[in-house]
Amino acid sequence: MILQSPPVERLVEAFRRLPGIGKRSAERLALHVLTAPSDEAQEFSAAILTARAAITTCSICANLTDLDPCVICTSDRRDAALLCVVERPTGAMAIEKGGTYRGRYHVLHGALNPLEGIGPSELHIDRLLRRLESGEVHEVIVATNATAEGEATALYLSRVIGKMGIAVSRIAHG
Amino acid sequence: MILQSPPVERLVEAFRRLPGIGKRSAERLALHVLTAPSDEAQEFSAAILTARAAITTCSICANLTDLDPCVICTSDRRDAALLCVVERPTGAMAIEKGGTYRGRYHVLHGALNPLEGIGPSELHIDRLLRRLESGEVHEVIVATNATAEGEATALYLSRVIGKMGIAVSRIAHG
Repeated sequence: MILQSPPVERLVEAFRRLPGIGKRSAERLALHVLTAPSDEAQEFSAAILTARAAITTCSICANLTDLDPCVICTSDRRDAALLCVVERPTGAMAIEKGGTYRGRYHVLHGALNPLEGIGPSELHIDRLLRRLESGEVHEVIVATNATAEGEATALYLSRVIGKMGIAVSRIAHG
Repeated sequence: MILQSPPVERLVEAFRRLPGIGKRSAERLALHVLTAPSDEAQEFSAAILTARAAITTCSICANLTDLDPCVICTSDRRDAALLCVVERPTGAMAIEKGGTYRGRYHVLHGALNPLEGIGPSELHIDRLLRRLESGEVHEVIVATNATAEGEATALYLSRVIGKMGIAVSRIAHG
């Protein structure tokens, strides 16, 4: 059986690391890649590397960007006094799709999760606090997810940022 | 928005070509690849190329294999007089999982679909008929899918193979 061949097992394993892809789906996707025209498979492989090479994280807000700093951090049409903290780039994307938010973002790339060893130093929280110390931001909206980890992160941030004399509010999503 | 960046659009497009992946899922998977550790993305890209290089189609039955001819075509424990015709490698896999079939396979890599220009010469049907002409096969089981195209293919094969004086039966699946 081809699925027991080590290179195929490796491909199935690569698909299984993707979110929402179980064993069966991973096998189906791997078989598609194996039976697709050769140029389609090569294009897929190349598209991964090309996108990774082109996209980086913004050195200010840690959001994904093809320019550093990102267009939101450098735009003078965005309110520099208002900052929205999200767990993931997808969180910022969802808010941008709403089209009404005019502030800037800070992407943590995760949420506090002591059981998995994710504390403030594993996230981009130090960077966030340094950013707040500059005094430019007057209001922070914490938009971490509506999960236990997201709530814990929001609580932690509210305390730390509140102590700095900056207004903090909470909007849950996800 | 990062999703409008051409290299990211290209990656989303590559994911959308996979079966069962819509636009939203493709965007979600592309964002995962962009935010995953760098070695995970590189491994994914490499796994595609490595698997494609290692796996070929059997020159006898057209099934996917890492050896040509495949282990089923060369095994003397499989009944050379019994042949099961399937549309896709997944069809042969499903029957192998059953564990009771002891004949060999022929994989068409599709089904007849005149509207999409898929006739007998676009499938591996010529190869199948040449194989049957050798006289080794005494019985053919047509296990194309239970779709309009699968049924049309089964009907076509039944007629052509019947004329050769070989027993043909039909088992639908998929």
